[in-house]
Amino acid sequence: MGFREHLEEICARVDGSLLCSVMGYDGIAVETVEQRPDGLDVAALLVEYTQVVNQVRQAASVLQSGKIEELVVSTDKLTAFSRPLTADYFLVLALGPDGNWGKARFVMRTTAPKVQAEF
Amino acid sequence: MGFREHLEEICARVDGSLLCSVMGYDGIAVETVEQRPDGLDVAALLVEYTQVVNQVRQAASVLQSGKIEELVVSTDKLTAFSRPLTADYFLVLALGPDGNWGKARFVMRTTAPKVQAEF
Repeated sequence: MGFREHLEEICARVDGSLLCSVMGYDGIAVETVEQRPDGLDVAALLVEYTQVVNQVRQAASVLQSGKIEELVVSTDKLTAFSRPLTADYFLVLALGPDGNWGKARFVMRTTAPKVQAEF
Repeated sequence: MGFREHLEEICARVDGSLLCSVMGYDGIAVETVEQRPDGLDVAALLVEYTQVVNQVRQAASVLQSGKIEELVVSTDKLTAFSRPLTADYFLVLALGPDGNWGKARFVMRTTAPKVQAEF
């Protein structure tokens, strides 16, 4: 399986998925699956979210509380879940306000190692 | 009720709570309830986490995806949930690895407006 198949599987299994992507911390998406973009500017959204993830990485680089495993940023329009994949890439899933958090977290946690294995 | 009572109620209702705090974005805690600090350096943790929240606020200040309602940062040792209260303050709850995410989110969502009303 390639990145695309994993991303499609995540979107298919998580109700309310808007998009799923393998992103570089440089803001460049390696692969993106858009499920239900509904007028969202997906490219702009991913770049914005990468900035957020990067800021958190930098601020948290010396956290006594350990390495970041999961980051969730929720706004009134969507919730973005991310998990690190490698030193340079992370997995991100955007969910609509009606999305299932529990399922999203579970599927991200179980799929991230499979995506990691593709690098 | 004052801040302290609300924070104690959150800790009491959420299994696995380590601490709950009303924090300023300047890194100064207004009120903190430590439930089960287990050797955690609570003060250092709150300052670190404030940096993370501030970075996200700045990066997300112009998000097309809307205003941040909820931020969750999870490491192997703990998970920190936060919700904005006012322009200057936010509510944060730290949960151990065994904590109940669903309960934490629910109690934070329902209690935050009550804490806001104390300002």
